[in-house]
Amino acid sequence: MKIGIVGATGVVGQEAWRLASEILADPKIEILPFASNARTSESGQKIFKLEDSQELLNSCEFVINAANADQAIWVAERLQKGQIMVDNSSAFRMNEMVPLIVPEVNGELLKDFNSNIVANPNCTAAILCVALNAIAHKGLKRIVVSTYQAASGAGLPGLEELKSQLRQWETPSEKWSTEVFGEALALNVLSHNSMARLDPELDAYLYNDEEYKVVEESKKILDLDDLWISATCVRVPVIRAHAESVTVDLESEATLQEIQEAFAKAPGIKIVDEPMKRSFPSPQKAQDQDDVLVGRIRQDLRHKKTWHFFIAGDQLRKGAATNALQIIKALRERG
Amino acid sequence: MKIGIVGATGVVGQEAWRLASEILADPKIEILPFASNARTSESGQKIFKLEDSQELLNSCEFVINAANADQAIWVAERLQKGQIMVDNSSAFRMNEMVPLIVPEVNGELLKDFNSNIVANPNCTAAILCVALNAIAHKGLKRIVVSTYQAASGAGLPGLEELKSQLRQWETPSEKWSTEVFGEALALNVLSHNSMARLDPELDAYLYNDEEYKVVEESKKILDLDDLWISATCVRVPVIRAHAESVTVDLESEATLQEIQEAFAKAPGIKIVDEPMKRSFPSPQKAQDQDDVLVGRIRQDLRHKKTWHFFIAGDQLRKGAATNALQIIKALRERG
Repeated sequence: MKIGIVGATGVVGQEAWRLASEILADPKIEILPFASNARTSESGQKIFKLEDSQELLNSCEFVINAANADQAIWVAERLQKGQIMVDNSSAFRMNEMVPLIVPEVNGELLKDFNSNIVANPNCTAAILCVALNAIAHKGLKRIVVSTYQAASGAGLPGLEELKSQLRQWETPSEKWSTEVFGEALALNVLSHNSMARLDPELDAYLYNDEEYKVVEESKKILDLDDLWISATCVRVPVIRAHAESVTVDLESEATLQEIQEAFAKAPGIKIVDEPMKRSFPSPQKAQDQDDVLVGRIRQDLRHKKTWHFFIAGDQLRKGAATNALQIIKALRERG
Repeated sequence: MKIGIVGATGVVGQEAWRLASEILADPKIEILPFASNARTSESGQKIFKLEDSQELLNSCEFVINAANADQAIWVAERLQKGQIMVDNSSAFRMNEMVPLIVPEVNGELLKDFNSNIVANPNCTAAILCVALNAIAHKGLKRIVVSTYQAASGAGLPGLEELKSQLRQWETPSEKWSTEVFGEALALNVLSHNSMARLDPELDAYLYNDEEYKVVEESKKILDLDDLWISATCVRVPVIRAHAESVTVDLESEATLQEIQEAFAKAPGIKIVDEPMKRSFPSPQKAQDQDDVLVGRIRQDLRHKKTWHFFIAGDQLRKGAATNALQIIKALRERG
């Protein structure tokens, strides 16, 4: 089986390439890597120029788009019958015809859909939904989330900018390069770098694009159109893996043990929650793992139906490449 | 006038020493610095050994305790009539006889109180209350806060640990020194390092000490015993200044303009909120400033009475030294 990876030289594309055989549990997977220009990978493999390689692209059963929305549209227009693109860009996520999938949460939608595109969610939304799914049976009434997002969420340029700042951390930050984040990210915390989006109802640019994605995509993934969810998206000087502080008002009461057990038995989750050892989820613990780490599980001090927890997940794996490959795995199992 | 500073060699003590004349607007202030051992400061000034200097201590009109709760109790037992200790430790904060003061919020309590101790709040609570105070007239119904707290909040050892990790950021984090934070803080995000506290009602160690402080102290400062407030306290790899993501449910509706104006005219606040320029509060912008920066002011997408904002404040200044000095200033003005 051939899988094409569009944007194979980016941070998500590289991960998908590296993880494909492992996650699909199939050593015979053939990866065809595409990028905007032909080149040779560090390991000596040929990377094809996408524009000139339509025939090769059409020889793939699955195409993972790890590039941007423009590339997604370009590929979508050229897909042939039987081919499926798993698209990590935001191009088709909110399209009603396109399923937006986190396999652990709504993978059953892959059994029956009418599209040659499956959308891979925003990384922060994907990680969040894995956790929320574990307790959704208690009724999700309201969600408040504040994020701690890694520099590599802004791709290689973001990652390199953070590293260049870290190399100079003892010189004044005014001298650092800040093209991607607009301000020093090393030794700092910044509002998410995505652009503000006009809200027609509020008639103001109050929320950034990342926050809309978390809100809109989470509702679609959880199939809860009416969910009250609010997000504040923030970048932190972390190389890799996002963390999120989550507050949930549930419809029903639950005991601490019930909530802990619900997380423990949910797919895609690993509990890291040892208060006496101060061992909790952190980006470094979540790095290079497929599971979402869940910890700091607390019943609210005041209201029994309100719960707080802290999660961390590798946004390049579960938030992107792993999830895309898990979608392909589920589609293959479906046949 | 003489001001004694107990713990003069710590991060808060050094700030109080440096800022005293400026904030009290009085070049004739004499500072008597005390520490656990006699030594000479970098600028050549003598620092007295606290234990051996009771007479000197009693010559001060005001004593700022920038050391821990044990030192606060030691000093409290030795205060003489007419002396006032402004205590930055947690020893007396929740004592009903002791006012817990953020001058902009509840400074009027300094006009009439029966104690020779005034408590200086937890840094995170102080910064939060300055912001909440601006919109409290609309009725504070529920607060959800997630923090982004700097390493220097854990004192010089925390600060030095982060710096030592940053010096080795390119070597694997397993080799870093992690005594203070228990885990790598550089390139990471950690649950706050304070110990878990037993909650008698939940019969579990779910919340850390910092979270209880934010909850309990904010209620006392805002004089709202019944306020529903929940906190998740997190350390980020920042040298100095805390940030907080705040969600507030208000009792009354307000327009965006009303909320913006309320913040703009509130004492101790500077608005930094330019979405089109992506200019928002950050720890680096808040560093070495007395004002709390407020931005990302957003009406909730779903509920008109819910508001989100992001704040940053220098926890060594407004969160500690500045606030203590502002208390002394208010007490002197009272006469």
